[in-house]
Amino acid sequence: MNDLIHDTAASAVFSDEKMHKVNLYESPHLFCDVYCLKPGQAQKPHTHAQNDKIYHALKGTCHVQIGNNVEALTPGRVAIAPAGVLHGIENRSDADATLLVIMAPNPNAD
Amino acid sequence: MNDLIHDTAASAVFSDEKMHKVNLYESPHLFCDVYCLKPGQAQKPHTHAQNDKIYHALKGTCHVQIGNNVEALTPGRVAIAPAGVLHGIENRSDADATLLVIMAPNPNAD
Repeated sequence: MNDLIHDTAASAVFSDEKMHKVNLYESPHLFCDVYCLKPGQAQKPHTHAQNDKIYHALKGTCHVQIGNNVEALTPGRVAIAPAGVLHGIENRSDADATLLVIMAPNPNAD
Repeated sequence: MNDLIHDTAASAVFSDEKMHKVNLYESPHLFCDVYCLKPGQAQKPHTHAQNDKIYHALKGTCHVQIGNNVEALTPGRVAIAPAGVLHGIENRSDADATLLVIMAPNPNAD
């Protein structure tokens, strides 16, 4: 069961090209990723019709958009994008940032 | 949309009687709670046949059981209990502890 317990900081992997997603677990019910954003990297605002997404800031600060609201998501803060609500994240800071991201149900499942 | 962004530390509420759950969001897809455990408090090991649960340690240290494996879940660590896998948490420390807990799908939904 060792693959069911993870250190989120040790799991982080960054890419110079774009925001990098590290998958910790997935099933048809959900996925659990660590999103890793270097300064300037982003996930553009988008919508999922049938899936809820949760962002939990782990390290650094990203700006999160939920609907028309944009605010800084500092560590310890959680942002929720219900199905059908526009959402995105952007690292506007000068430091690396990581977030724990959970989406349910898993849009990548068969 | 202010109810879609939360400070997990500010959301914590403890009870002298038992582990206290603070719900931040729920839909049929998932629930997102902050579990607040004083020293000695626990959620006994149990199983959900159709739901995955994720524990993310926010503050303090709880022991988490996943299947037959029990270990200390320090802040920043994530434990995943897939559907059908025994799981529970216990605060064996002498300090308050909080965890972000997400379960999908939501077993409390109609």
